[in-house]
Amino acid sequence: MSDPRHPTPLKTINPDLAAERASLPFSPLAITHFLDGGASNTERRRRLESWIIRDPSGVFSNEDNNYMHRTERHTRALAKFVRLVELCRAAGIGSNNESTNANTPKSAIQHIEGEIIASPEFYTLISAISDDPLPPSLHWVMFVPNILTLCDAEQQAHWLPLCRDWKMIGCYAQTELGHGSNIRALETTATFLKESEGGAPGGEWIIHSPTLTSWKFWPGTLGKTANYAMVIARLIDGEKMDRGIHNFLVPLRSTKDHTLLPGVETGDIGPKIGYNNMDNGYARFDSVKIPRRNMAMRFARVDEEGRYERLWVGRRRLLPSYITMMQVRAYIIHSSNEALAMACTIAIRYSAVRRQGYNTDNDDNNEFQVLDYRQQQYRLLPLLAASYAIYFTGRHVLDRLKYIENQLVAGATTITKTVVGDIHATTSALKSFATTFTADGIEDCRKACGGHGFLVCSGLVELSNTYLQSCTVEGDNHMLPQQVIKVLLKLVEKVQSGDVDALKEYAQTDMGYLIEPLQKLVENASVSGTPTKSSFAFPSSATHDHFLDTSMLLVAFQHRTACLLLDVAMQLQSSMEMSSPQQAWNDCLLSMSRASRAHACYLLLRDFSNGLEHERKKGPSSCLGDNEIAVLSQCLTLLALYWMDQHLSDFLQIQCLDSSHIPLLRKALLGVMTKLRPSAVGLCDARDFSDFRLKSALGRYDGDVYPAIINAARNDPLNKESQNGGVGLGYDESLRKLIVGGV
Amino acid sequence: MSDPRHPTPLKTINPDLAAERASLPFSPLAITHFLDGGASNTERRRRLESWIIRDPSGVFSNEDNNYMHRTERHTRALAKFVRLVELCRAAGIGSNNESTNANTPKSAIQHIEGEIIASPEFYTLISAISDDPLPPSLHWVMFVPNILTLCDAEQQAHWLPLCRDWKMIGCYAQTELGHGSNIRALETTATFLKESEGGAPGGEWIIHSPTLTSWKFWPGTLGKTANYAMVIARLIDGEKMDRGIHNFLVPLRSTKDHTLLPGVETGDIGPKIGYNNMDNGYARFDSVKIPRRNMAMRFARVDEEGRYERLWVGRRRLLPSYITMMQVRAYIIHSSNEALAMACTIAIRYSAVRRQGYNTDNDDNNEFQVLDYRQQQYRLLPLLAASYAIYFTGRHVLDRLKYIENQLVAGATTITKTVVGDIHATTSALKSFATTFTADGIEDCRKACGGHGFLVCSGLVELSNTYLQSCTVEGDNHMLPQQVIKVLLKLVEKVQSGDVDALKEYAQTDMGYLIEPLQKLVENASVSGTPTKSSFAFPSSATHDHFLDTSMLLVAFQHRTACLLLDVAMQLQSSMEMSSPQQAWNDCLLSMSRASRAHACYLLLRDFSNGLEHERKKGPSSCLGDNEIAVLSQCLTLLALYWMDQHLSDFLQIQCLDSSHIPLLRKALLGVMTKLRPSAVGLCDARDFSDFRLKSALGRYDGDVYPAIINAARNDPLNKESQNGGVGLGYDESLRKLIVGGV
Repeated sequence: MSDPRHPTPLKTINPDLAAERASLPFSPLAITHFLDGGASNTERRRRLESWIIRDPSGVFSNEDNNYMHRTERHTRALAKFVRLVELCRAAGIGSNNESTNANTPKSAIQHIEGEIIASPEFYTLISAISDDPLPPSLHWVMFVPNILTLCDAEQQAHWLPLCRDWKMIGCYAQTELGHGSNIRALETTATFLKESEGGAPGGEWIIHSPTLTSWKFWPGTLGKTANYAMVIARLIDGEKMDRGIHNFLVPLRSTKDHTLLPGVETGDIGPKIGYNNMDNGYARFDSVKIPRRNMAMRFARVDEEGRYERLWVGRRRLLPSYITMMQVRAYIIHSSNEALAMACTIAIRYSAVRRQGYNTDNDDNNEFQVLDYRQQQYRLLPLLAASYAIYFTGRHVLDRLKYIENQLVAGATTITKTVVGDIHATTSALKSFATTFTADGIEDCRKACGGHGFLVCSGLVELSNTYLQSCTVEGDNHMLPQQVIKVLLKLVEKVQSGDVDALKEYAQTDMGYLIEPLQKLVENASVSGTPTKSSFAFPSSATHDHFLDTSMLLVAFQHRTACLLLDVAMQLQSSMEMSSPQQAWNDCLLSMSRASRAHACYLLLRDFSNGLEHERKKGPSSCLGDNEIAVLSQCLTLLALYWMDQHLSDFLQIQCLDSSHIPLLRKALLGVMTKLRPSAVGLCDARDFSDFRLKSALGRYDGDVYPAIINAARNDPLNKESQNGGVGLGYDESLRKLIVGGV
Repeated sequence: MSDPRHPTPLKTINPDLAAERASLPFSPLAITHFLDGGASNTERRRRLESWIIRDPSGVFSNEDNNYMHRTERHTRALAKFVRLVELCRAAGIGSNNESTNANTPKSAIQHIEGEIIASPEFYTLISAISDDPLPPSLHWVMFVPNILTLCDAEQQAHWLPLCRDWKMIGCYAQTELGHGSNIRALETTATFLKESEGGAPGGEWIIHSPTLTSWKFWPGTLGKTANYAMVIARLIDGEKMDRGIHNFLVPLRSTKDHTLLPGVETGDIGPKIGYNNMDNGYARFDSVKIPRRNMAMRFARVDEEGRYERLWVGRRRLLPSYITMMQVRAYIIHSSNEALAMACTIAIRYSAVRRQGYNTDNDDNNEFQVLDYRQQQYRLLPLLAASYAIYFTGRHVLDRLKYIENQLVAGATTITKTVVGDIHATTSALKSFATTFTADGIEDCRKACGGHGFLVCSGLVELSNTYLQSCTVEGDNHMLPQQVIKVLLKLVEKVQSGDVDALKEYAQTDMGYLIEPLQKLVENASVSGTPTKSSFAFPSSATHDHFLDTSMLLVAFQHRTACLLLDVAMQLQSSMEMSSPQQAWNDCLLSMSRASRAHACYLLLRDFSNGLEHERKKGPSSCLGDNEIAVLSQCLTLLALYWMDQHLSDFLQIQCLDSSHIPLLRKALLGVMTKLRPSAVGLCDARDFSDFRLKSALGRYDGDVYPAIINAARNDPLNKESQNGGVGLGYDESLRKLIVGGV
């Protein structure tokens, strides 16, 4: 297949990389097709990417990214976005969309027809722009979905066309300077003012920031880009009753000339560790008046007299935004697979090219490829394997959420509280574990590049800094385990009470795997105060081969979650005898983290295993042949062994393993690494990241690393300011005094 | 004691911080005095810091650090340095130095008398400048010591006065683009050219970069600041013999106008993850000619005919640079304590001020202090404890190296190979472990600040980015364990062979603690293929109290190292039966890391324990009273329990602990955290970091966090470019098209 991204073939390939590619036991392209969902999709993606790479406007070039001040980067990001919209319009992208969001009411779809951002191709193009976060894309990702979910039909008919035509560019303004995830504590107020008390005809809202800690802070595009904000505020109705948190559409800037409207102060929040293209903003509202109907009124409304009325109650009211929240988490999980794979691609290609340390076993005077060191393998290969595991799990979770959403839209009764709780636990556990793992993994890839990993031109610095937010947004990774355990503890109760009907339902969920081991554990109630002992253990006669048996490894992970979960339940019980419920809960937080992590690990391994089995069963209709399934199965085994080694104390604690197993486990680990080593570069190539997207001097496809580093160095403005014999401002202003003047 | 850094008292203190400080069970100031080495030192340090903070030139201000492009930051750093030299000259600093380096030959000292950088007060001032890396300071830290160590007396007499007077500003140019720590592979050549073959009178050197991978790359100040470089190159003598790596003093730039000299190309290497004040540079030498006597000739020389002669041989030749290398590592270890303490100070003060989540146990409608969550305590308190542990160990290692150096200078025979090997293992193990721990810890502190930890104004982003290099320079942390284990394996041999005389000597070294447990293990030779079982174990009847017994915990750590070390020895032996020595070594790398980490942990805990015991014995003459020793002892216990929990699988593997001990361990951990919680803010205050140095909106002494964040946001140039109604370039150039023009 021709690759339109590289019209001329690459001139030379680094000989080490060429040798790696010449001896692959599988076809990377087959995996590429699988990941894209078929060969034609690969072709289409590459063609779309080539539009960006070869766009004659030159605005997408990344050559000077690393030298720009963030003001320039923000300005450039906006220019990229506008150019992207131009390209899409010219190509007719979005003119014939099927809405990607099945939750969208049919009535709303007509209002966003022709919306280019609703097209999946738009996301391919956004990715092709080297994963530069482009501010206005949040308009579609956060703002429009909020209107679709929370506004009534009339409101949608009014606002959505403005959104589609970019007359309205919106942001989602929830977080405040003093308040993060605890939304009950938000302080911004929306106070109803009746017409009879001086309000506009029909009444109006006064949006106000009563304290410094109530200033909105962090929302993306709030600072400079957005002209509207969906503001989350406490509703004070006509009777001065506080009705809690609701959403209000607040105009920020003139749609004519973008100047701030009276009473509104916004600004960018300043430099961040990453994501500096984005104008995350702050906003202060000084008694800003907005019409009564700017309150989102699908689930509650306030009439002209200021009377508050809930329209839907309970679960039905909460479900849509609940599902949206889980979908955002699922996207974060799924996108981790790409970020981690990019980091692995850079570090593994570089480790194949970089040589260091002489081989004393022979005299050929060549240094070792760094990738041949066991430590480098232990650092990189499990990350590579995990990037594939997260891919499979991410797809599985997205599919499952889509199914649940479709069922809900269709009014099916199968989507019970248990089902929703389960997917909540799954997405929370996976979000917490997978994003922490990915963030640490990207940074490990950077460190594994040694000195040159410190260079911004490695591509790893920005990749890491941009990714890091995933650990904190949409539920801090250290807080989420509590939500996981709240759900899983209900299952423990059902097992303890032997509620057969309930367990039948649980059996169909992600946590179903816990029922059997929990039942066994509950039968043999363990001694209070000692850790729960697993009812499954590796035999004392186990050999090296037992540790290459993936299904046995999976059983071990299954029992591990069950034991750690039961420990939490028992610890909570016994703590409550001595302290208040809150204190008892607090004292269990660390155990909860362990149990939640165990749940996530099992789901990742199970989905990876099931995904491969599914492809195997498809036979020739799968993009993956036997060789590809074989190498991905090695990845699965490696990952299971790696996590067992990394979390070894859990397995020893539950006596699923004993000391004598440790050398076998580690020997198996070395063995699988040896097997996987020749496939490492191929498994990176299979992701088919263009050099344009990787933006890395170290991770180039051709391996021509050193000229790329020097080129990046020479382009630094610090060198350019001093063409004249290499003397710059620093000498003129300061050094001369020291050297010539004699301070 | 008055604090000249804050001439007027702070107006208000955040009430939460005030409450923390009102109920401290110890005196932070007593600990400050201890850390400074006495009250008068504290006073002197504060006075020096106040010079910087209150300098009327304003050049030291950090207000706009975060908004500057790196070209500006580099220029500003040079201006800071020159201003600093001015201040020191005015104050007479350095005019009456005792050299801080006892290794400096007496004859050399006269050449650097009056050198301000030789004064310890200079370092206090450098630190006061908010830990901004100032390029020219490398001149003294890397370049001048190299002249002192490797040049002969005549060369020193010639060059040192030029160094002192800043006529010569030098850098140390070793690393090449393609070659890092394996210096045998360096490619730059220094080829001798006799006068008779066209060289200058007396012969000369041709310094040349034969390949792209041979370009010097990374040396600090090589790019723009230095006018001389100490270049490490392969010496090719008059007979065309390659004599290996030697040092050559190469002029780079004119001392008149700083222009590059013929044949030399240098430049800055471009943006890095941190340290962007510094012009790390690259250099290409195109047959640059330098005089014969520009080769450093203390240990080897080449005469006018190009004849090469080694002057000192073997150990005696290598020792001085060996000691220097270890001293640099020791400084890196010691300085980690400050970097980690700064991060803890920011995160802990912020966690005391930040409130999140309602207390359901009572109805007072106040949110929790984040520091009251167990997870936050588990993330931050052990780091705080470790910062003190690293302080004690850092001091101990520096003192020991100073002693060894003095003995060597005095010609003592007590400094045997064993002694030098031991301190090499100590510094390598500690450098690898303590810097990885600190780097991860700083990043954990950043993450523990939640969303606001992403803001550069948190101070944690730059602190982390600047620190990170410590993991890679002076021996990559993943490579160093091999060096540790090489040394420790010799001890294992001596124990195995029962060499009593040798063991007597080993008993006096840092690794002496291993002899007894190793002897026991060797007596009861364990079964091959199973992990070594500890000869010390917690009793099966152990209670919670056993885990609060620090001396028992230390014994456990002692035995852990011994077992893991013996495992490496046995694994190496058995691997060698099946594979080549190099392959066997490679397969053991992961076990070596574990054993090296265990060695480092034990040393850190032991030095902390010994340090506190030493102060206790001093009684009233110590700055630390009973209360301070009590709180630091809690830190020691916490750290031991934390590392036991973090590395739990090691202790279970060696059967020093069994499953039933785990709940006891974790309960003890919670208990110590509860005890230490009220002291947390005080232990940060005790470090006495000025707000000027912390540069953090979140870590301010007064806790007035939120106005500081808004202030930092408002100052971003992105906001300043758009005073006019808040509209900026991004709108003019792009957004207008989207909103008004309708792309």
